[in-house]
Amino acid sequence: MTISVAVSGASGYAGGEVLRLLARHPEVQIGAITAHSNAGARLGSLQPHLFALADRELVDTTPENLAGHDVVFLALPHGASGAIAAELPGDVLVIDAGADHRLASSEAWEEFYGGDHAGTWPYGLPELPGARAELATARRIAVPGCYPTSAQLALVPGFAAGVLEPDDVVIVAASGTSGAGKSLKPHLLGSEVMGGMSPYGVGGVHRHTPEMEQGFSRAAGAPVTVSFTPTLAPMSRGILTTATARVKPGVTAEQLRAVWEDAYADEAFVHVLPEGQWPQTKAVLGTNHAALQLALDPRTGRLIVVAAIDNLTKGTAGGAVQSMNIALGFDEMTGLSFEGTAP
Amino acid sequence: MTISVAVSGASGYAGGEVLRLLARHPEVQIGAITAHSNAGARLGSLQPHLFALADRELVDTTPENLAGHDVVFLALPHGASGAIAAELPGDVLVIDAGADHRLASSEAWEEFYGGDHAGTWPYGLPELPGARAELATARRIAVPGCYPTSAQLALVPGFAAGVLEPDDVVIVAASGTSGAGKSLKPHLLGSEVMGGMSPYGVGGVHRHTPEMEQGFSRAAGAPVTVSFTPTLAPMSRGILTTATARVKPGVTAEQLRAVWEDAYADEAFVHVLPEGQWPQTKAVLGTNHAALQLALDPRTGRLIVVAAIDNLTKGTAGGAVQSMNIALGFDEMTGLSFEGTAP
Amino acid sequence: MTISVAVSGASGYAGGEVLRLLARHPEVQIGAITAHSNAGARLGSLQPHLFALADRELVDTTPENLAGHDVVFLALPHGASGAIAAELPGDVLVIDAGADHRLASSEAWEEFYGGDHAGTWPYGLPELPGARAELATARRIAVPGCYPTSAQLALVPGFAAGVLEPDDVVIVAASGTSGAGKSLKPHLLGSEVMGGMSPYGVGGVHRHTPEMEQGFSRAAGAPVTVSFTPTLAPMSRGILTTATARVKPGVTAEQLRAVWEDAYADEAFVHVLPEGQWPQTKAVLGTNHAALQLALDPRTGRLIVVAAIDNLTKGTAGGAVQSMNIALGFDEMTGLSFEGTAP
Amino acid sequence: MTISVAVSGASGYAGGEVLRLLARHPEVQIGAITAHSNAGARLGSLQPHLFALADRELVDTTPENLAGHDVVFLALPHGASGAIAAELPGDVLVIDAGADHRLASSEAWEEFYGGDHAGTWPYGLPELPGARAELATARRIAVPGCYPTSAQLALVPGFAAGVLEPDDVVIVAASGTSGAGKSLKPHLLGSEVMGGMSPYGVGGVHRHTPEMEQGFSRAAGAPVTVSFTPTLAPMSRGILTTATARVKPGVTAEQLRAVWEDAYADEAFVHVLPEGQWPQTKAVLGTNHAALQLALDPRTGRLIVVAAIDNLTKGTAGGAVQSMNIALGFDEMTGLSFEGTAP
Repeated sequence: MTISVAVSGASGYAGGEVLRLLARHPEVQIGAITAHSNAGARLGSLQPHLFALADRELVDTTPENLAGHDVVFLALPHGASGAIAAELPGDVLVIDAGADHRLASSEAWEEFYGGDHAGTWPYGLPELPGARAELATARRIAVPGCYPTSAQLALVPGFAAGVLEPDDVVIVAASGTSGAGKSLKPHLLGSEVMGGMSPYGVGGVHRHTPEMEQGFSRAAGAPVTVSFTPTLAPMSRGILTTATARVKPGVTAEQLRAVWEDAYADEAFVHVLPEGQWPQTKAVLGTNHAALQLALDPRTGRLIVVAAIDNLTKGTAGGAVQSMNIALGFDEMTGLSFEGTAP
Repeated sequence: MTISVAVSGASGYAGGEVLRLLARHPEVQIGAITAHSNAGARLGSLQPHLFALADRELVDTTPENLAGHDVVFLALPHGASGAIAAELPGDVLVIDAGADHRLASSEAWEEFYGGDHAGTWPYGLPELPGARAELATARRIAVPGCYPTSAQLALVPGFAAGVLEPDDVVIVAASGTSGAGKSLKPHLLGSEVMGGMSPYGVGGVHRHTPEMEQGFSRAAGAPVTVSFTPTLAPMSRGILTTATARVKPGVTAEQLRAVWEDAYADEAFVHVLPEGQWPQTKAVLGTNHAALQLALDPRTGRLIVVAAIDNLTKGTAGGAVQSMNIALGFDEMTGLSFEGTAP
Repeated sequence: MTISVAVSGASGYAGGEVLRLLARHPEVQIGAITAHSNAGARLGSLQPHLFALADRELVDTTPENLAGHDVVFLALPHGASGAIAAELPGDVLVIDAGADHRLASSEAWEEFYGGDHAGTWPYGLPELPGARAELATARRIAVPGCYPTSAQLALVPGFAAGVLEPDDVVIVAASGTSGAGKSLKPHLLGSEVMGGMSPYGVGGVHRHTPEMEQGFSRAAGAPVTVSFTPTLAPMSRGILTTATARVKPGVTAEQLRAVWEDAYADEAFVHVLPEGQWPQTKAVLGTNHAALQLALDPRTGRLIVVAAIDNLTKGTAGGAVQSMNIALGFDEMTGLSFEGTAP
Repeated sequence: MTISVAVSGASGYAGGEVLRLLARHPEVQIGAITAHSNAGARLGSLQPHLFALADRELVDTTPENLAGHDVVFLALPHGASGAIAAELPGDVLVIDAGADHRLASSEAWEEFYGGDHAGTWPYGLPELPGARAELATARRIAVPGCYPTSAQLALVPGFAAGVLEPDDVVIVAASGTSGAGKSLKPHLLGSEVMGGMSPYGVGGVHRHTPEMEQGFSRAAGAPVTVSFTPTLAPMSRGILTTATARVKPGVTAEQLRAVWEDAYADEAFVHVLPEGQWPQTKAVLGTNHAALQLALDPRTGRLIVVAAIDNLTKGTAGGAVQSMNIALGFDEMTGLSFEGTAP
């Protein structure tokens, strides 16, 4: 079976990563490749790493150009995907890498994004409890944000198992610059980012905060609040997330390890590393893998879970393709079965 | 007045940074430059950036070679400085960049470092309350660790002013690789560190943890516990510290800003940035400056303070020279009055 | 058909890259994975990016452990492969990523490497004229050096077509640090390499010089001499080679472009980019692709060809697997058909 | 004596570097700080590393705002400085960091830059033969380009001494991204430049080519042609230049070394390193130093000279301040006497 797939936003980093993965997906034929201001360009001039697709021409991102495919990936600025999706038939699988359909709460949407809430789609993080059943029949899928992917993989097992206190979660994460996209802003110039680190979105204002809280609260069955601070690291790809929560009284380090190992025992892409080995973003570079490790600090009663993912792969395009595989009945690893590019 | 200074450990990063700063210090004449396995080498072959001292020969790190100077800087592995210092006359100013004499608690020393506690020296972080008076007459000074320097600059004002809860401080920091020294370990190779991030010392086991707690507890007048997680960032220099603590009930964002601005109003090297501007490690590269910013997250009741320093300068050698200036009665900025090297 | 493959030197960068590629090769079953000082270790502790092989144990690099496979990859220090290969049956395909069997000239071997010349094996650069016929029946293959791979891909078409002068070729190349391997040398520490560049092996002394001259001389049918200067760049992977040669009188820019485009018209892995687009090492990161561009400088009469490869993939392990595919009758792209990891 | 200095283009990298150096210059008082689109901004928001000047306000770049100072630095796009300079009195020292007044040949200007040639000013590379005498009385100084600074320091001694052939010089250089300025171009984004290298301006078209040829030809007393290829390296600062020329018959390695060592024996900022030690851009980071090393390749008859400078310091602002010192009768090292920031 070969399915036809259209990819919008193909001149950006997320769209480019979707194409990188689809180009090696054995069940996929890549149809329309679309962009906005770059329509008409040769793909190879914008994404020179996509040799197999170098001579393909970008067409304009319109419902007409996206129509007629089995699957449509939307890698657009938030606010743009709702209108496009509404024009596509309901039996087309639409996978939105943007934020529009991630949040269930209209209040949270309005507070953090502003404007009208576009509605909620099935959430494409297959490793969450119950997610696969929902994704198997979905024809609209919201791809999680990159930070929430790593944060939820880090802490959801503990909330689902009831071993973590729901209040006072503290998360600090470092992301590569591709997370900020290809936008031409002075602070994203190579001269500015190489050799230094800086924070942004401090004080609970980053848009991924309510998405994390949504995932944790669902798992815990009770409201969870999160203090989240993102930082920009001098690397192109990768997120290293340090997630900490207070442990419920009496829970031991051995119990905690068992909870995480059990949660991911059957997962192909999530790896609780052997004790003593810590996650590195380079080990997951370009892959759909997540590497986790945890430690209980008995002095403070906090559990620290560190998660490493590639923000563009597991954090965006890889998770999107994984969800597509589930929705289409393919083996979940199809097209995603490869190793990290290290060193 | 010209003072003569000896520098030990000159083939390492801390010793090299001491020499870089002293080479431009107008009151200093650099005497013996010592090393261990590199004794006999030309300094320029090991520290090629020190052009003014390139032809100086390294001599062995012995009490004899260090004797006869007004000031001796020790940049040695922990455990080595006590014996050396004991051989130097009491009126020689000895400044130890190592950990041996930082902790007041023997129990903490034994738990985190092991072995016998070498005793406690005046602590060379002049911006701490009361520190300058003690340093002015000190002839033995313990230079703070790099992470504790940034962490204490970030949070001490709040503990001293009584606006922060003493329990459940959470600190996550990213350091450049020079913080790990020049030791030949596989994970410090350029091929390993470039393009990726990883944590280490997770779970409350990093040796700088009790040093942070000591500083916070003194300022708060009550025990403070800290969950501290360090990470390794792909850059040579710099520490970005994200420090969070819960705010006491009723304290407002305006009050918090006033506390920090007041605390550092007269400090030459600590800068509370204007609102909206966040610290960058590149801005302080090679300088003795610390840049701070703070934000109150009303949803979680946590204050987040982010601090950027250069681990080798303000975090080690710059703090050491600043303390030397105080102990010798020089203007505190002597030899340290220069701008960051950016971009 | 599934073939069994053993990989030696698996704790190093070249061996790790062979494993990364073989893990996704559909015709291959990975047998013994060997190392020297790391024998007994879990592969995941040394190569954490190889998730699929993480629990495999490294065994000692002995002829016994390598025996019984259809193919043996040797990723060993030069001087070590000859003795190992001699113990393996003649019908086993042995692919040596080291230098031992690359040079035809014993004099060049002795001058640049020293010691006894181990003999010459078929040379695994399939894009060279006549190479595929020789490789198709070979059971011993010498993988080219990383710099010579890029240099020969850059200039051999011109020598083969007779449009370049054979004397006074000048080549300057920049390599990522993985080209220097995992050896624990101070100048390879992250703190040293990040943010800077330096040369090495200047003055015609780098060991890859005679290998380049061998390839150019064969193509030109006359002796070619090369001035080669390698430099170390602050990146883990990639080689950017700037190769220049004087053009024979009367040859035009159009003729030159036609020569290169014709030479690589049927090559899957070598790409002469459209005019105006220049090679970037990031575009070929982790792939077996080489990207080329050329320009004639009419003021000096020199042709400049710039080539970008990944030193570990096309420059080592990818070229090795490509040669294996040819020697075993597989499609040349088997297991190598994927795109670059960018940004 | 204190002189008043105005700095234009202060929001860019060159202007920022001029300010960084002037802030520590003991004879200088910084007057107007000007910009174009950033007029009205606080300097600290644009150049956060300039703590001492953080609260200064940028004013518009107009002749009125620049008037009334002893010295005016112009760090403007080429084409803009001529008109500004014409409005300033002849006894004001005007130092132009742009290209407008570097070339003596109107033909070269028109070919490489286009438009009208603004005329030629004394050339601010003090280490060139005869340069200091001209600079001592100059009131208009053209700061050399960054690549030509390193290239001329590398090869001029050989041309002046008559030991190099004037034809077929080949130069390949790697520059940090700050050389491209703060312009918002996609290929300068951190995500694009980190971890990779690429060439640009290949084929003899880079604007610094005629400037190099001008310097070499003056020194040789005969026309010299240069094949120059610049590349972009993943670092913020630094240029590593590999310059090669054929040696005249009979000239020995010893003679060559003596020529270079003699040429720079009395220079404070140019260092011919001891044999066996190669230049590193990190060693000169942030300094006005240039580090050189040379090797004769007897197989090809080429001399290779490698030079490392900081493109923003010795390559732009440092050279400018050094020239200012000469023109004002200060010691040449005033304000420039400090060591590199490494690691």
